[in-house]
Amino acid sequence: MLVQSLIERKRDGGALSPAEWEALLAGFLSDQVPDYQMAALLMAIVWRGLTPEELTVLTRLMRDSGARLEWPAGFPARVDKHSTGGVGDKVSLVLAPLVASLGIAVPMMSGRGLGHTGGTTDKLESIPGFRTDLPLAAVQAQVARLGVAMFGQTEAIAPADRRLYALRDVTGTVPAIPLIAASILSKKLAEGLTGLVLDVKAGSGAFLPAVDDARALARTMVDLGEAAGCRTTALVTAMDRPLGRAIGNALEVEETLLALSGQGPEDLLTVTRALAMEMVLLAGRAPDPAAARRLVDDALASGAALDRFRELIEAQGGDPAVVDDPGRLPQAAEVELFEAPAAGTIAAVDPRPLGEAVVAMGGGRRRLGDTIDPSVGFVVSGRPGARVAKGEPIASVFAADPAGIAVGLAALGRAIRFGEPAPQLPLLVSRITAQGETRT
Amino acid sequence: MLVQSLIERKRDGGALSPAEWEALLAGFLSDQVPDYQMAALLMAIVWRGLTPEELTVLTRLMRDSGARLEWPAGFPARVDKHSTGGVGDKVSLVLAPLVASLGIAVPMMSGRGLGHTGGTTDKLESIPGFRTDLPLAAVQAQVARLGVAMFGQTEAIAPADRRLYALRDVTGTVPAIPLIAASILSKKLAEGLTGLVLDVKAGSGAFLPAVDDARALARTMVDLGEAAGCRTTALVTAMDRPLGRAIGNALEVEETLLALSGQGPEDLLTVTRALAMEMVLLAGRAPDPAAARRLVDDALASGAALDRFRELIEAQGGDPAVVDDPGRLPQAAEVELFEAPAAGTIAAVDPRPLGEAVVAMGGGRRRLGDTIDPSVGFVVSGRPGARVAKGEPIASVFAADPAGIAVGLAALGRAIRFGEPAPQLPLLVSRITAQGETRT
Repeated sequence: MLVQSLIERKRDGGALSPAEWEALLAGFLSDQVPDYQMAALLMAIVWRGLTPEELTVLTRLMRDSGARLEWPAGFPARVDKHSTGGVGDKVSLVLAPLVASLGIAVPMMSGRGLGHTGGTTDKLESIPGFRTDLPLAAVQAQVARLGVAMFGQTEAIAPADRRLYALRDVTGTVPAIPLIAASILSKKLAEGLTGLVLDVKAGSGAFLPAVDDARALARTMVDLGEAAGCRTTALVTAMDRPLGRAIGNALEVEETLLALSGQGPEDLLTVTRALAMEMVLLAGRAPDPAAARRLVDDALASGAALDRFRELIEAQGGDPAVVDDPGRLPQAAEVELFEAPAAGTIAAVDPRPLGEAVVAMGGGRRRLGDTIDPSVGFVVSGRPGARVAKGEPIASVFAADPAGIAVGLAALGRAIRFGEPAPQLPLLVSRITAQGETRT
Repeated sequence: MLVQSLIERKRDGGALSPAEWEALLAGFLSDQVPDYQMAALLMAIVWRGLTPEELTVLTRLMRDSGARLEWPAGFPARVDKHSTGGVGDKVSLVLAPLVASLGIAVPMMSGRGLGHTGGTTDKLESIPGFRTDLPLAAVQAQVARLGVAMFGQTEAIAPADRRLYALRDVTGTVPAIPLIAASILSKKLAEGLTGLVLDVKAGSGAFLPAVDDARALARTMVDLGEAAGCRTTALVTAMDRPLGRAIGNALEVEETLLALSGQGPEDLLTVTRALAMEMVLLAGRAPDPAAARRLVDDALASGAALDRFRELIEAQGGDPAVVDDPGRLPQAAEVELFEAPAAGTIAAVDPRPLGEAVVAMGGGRRRLGDTIDPSVGFVVSGRPGARVAKGEPIASVFAADPAGIAVGLAALGRAIRFGEPAPQLPLLVSRITAQGETRT
């Protein structure tokens, strides 16, 4: 195999054969194919894309580069969710115990915060004692016993993705739909799922802000998951404003507890319910959306979902008492209100400055290995379209010190705009399945 | 400077500032910018191109990465020629002494054979004793004394180009017009020229076969040379058939001697004369093309051009007696005629199989450092459009052994096609100057 001839073919818009991809990836992982050749190929892929067959093959090879979760024959349906990431996106924390409480196995692998977006494992670890670094054997045992485990990506899963992502990160080759899709699916498919639901964010707080890019990514991932034998559905959802009110690790856990009790906030519940219904349908636990909706509502109303979250916390070493006493979560030393500077209408709440401010205030990582302060963040009660009086409190900043408060207030000043409300994305933009797309 | 942000900008179609290019190239040469980032950037350049300003800056930085020829104030005009390479292209060997005999300084830097095309330094070295590895000081002294030196690219000239080319060669990033133009011009401009003429080949035997690609490269290089303060003219010339009859190092030297005596072949003389006239005009040695033509014709007819070649050979350690006795050049052990398999018309003579066969027969390098057999090659007397009788000899193969003869005969069988003559490029396709383009 002459690697440069493969690069040339991709550069000229051609496709590589399955055997060529296999040799290429094996060569890359064994350092026979140098990083500079892979970097050139990655840029050619950003330019030219991958055919559906290439994408399926590459994803399978990446998945098979590491360990996989294995489930015995007859094991119930396994369904997971992936979000492309947003600000205030604590959906996973509500969804995993909720769906597990309906008898569906949820082996949920999550990431850490990335850029301006938070990460599910960081949020969970704000619960005192909570461990997310479970070995795969422990994940399997816990899912068999409790129906749910929430764990971080280990070195064992899809090492090819880890190597490729590290190279993409420094070569300007991250934002390519096929590469994003292969990265996400290679890890999720290693979980041995029967079904997968994807929450693809669109809007200014998303990694791919344009709705059409989000739809294209969703379409690509649905086709890719289905081609790999995993039933896959995607929802494109709004990330042109934060999801819910809380932004920041411990603050989002607190809001999770509200949502698991069915007490809102409404947008968070709407997105979570929609995703939960898809998971119920994918698992074959309900014949139609209405029946799925009843199951989901019952699990929230009965307290079954909240109970499962308590059991999950306990199973993973966390303090289950936080469920009934959120005051046991890390508390910020400083809190300050942000007041409307004048009477008017909130035009928009831009999620990105708020996500970036959480990182700046110590609640996210600037570089791998940074420790984070789980207590910092925002609660933004002012929503786009709301009329407010001058001096009315519309948000709170939680910080470790006055400098953090200043950072947070400045970010709120940039994020919250007043005036004529700008057009907003519908909360649920689009539903994409193997059968097609339904836009709302 | 965050290199990945520069890559991202180029990927998205933007431009880098002069300061960014300078930092990037300095970082690359000092191993601060790793090859994988440069490889991704190079592929992004293949995709997005460079703006004229970026190209000028990059070329200047590449030129200034190494040594340059310096000429004292008042030194006569220095004019060189560059060819993008072809099969049977011995123009430089005729042109350099011819133009030097007219009192124009010709510091001519040439390359070795590359792929299916021959290299001027390889051809010169088929003359017993001829040295092309002159230090730059020797080049300057010889040009001052004799008006001409023909030397190989040294490590001292444009090391940035050498580093970049080595990376491009293995990352599928060679065929991008701005990168080709920067590579060629950075080296030529290091010669301290006042004028430069470019012979850009088009047709199946050229590196960029499409005429429009050749024209675009020519246009780019003319603009780039002019922007660097070097008067530059380009001729796009035909390489859809071999130039002249001889292909192979010593055989081409022998044909050079014929041409320097004005004895043809006609196509070689036409191209050489056209390029020589451009050099005369660029040097300001003639007021118009007709006057330039007279000077050139006189130099050939008077023997002045041939005399200068003899002096050049002697100055660079070669055996000057070859000029009067070509039998002193290396002679192939085996020679065999290729006869027309049937009566008919020669439709085409494809240069590429013949160039590749010279390499296969030992007359070119498969890898750096290979020694070559200067005696092997072809003399193809059959020209496209010629009517031939069955069994009429239309070419000769020169090889070291019967296996080489077989390779050569097979290549002739592929290269020479019979039937209705295909449309041919005009020998002189186009002339491109700072003022515009004249097509023929």
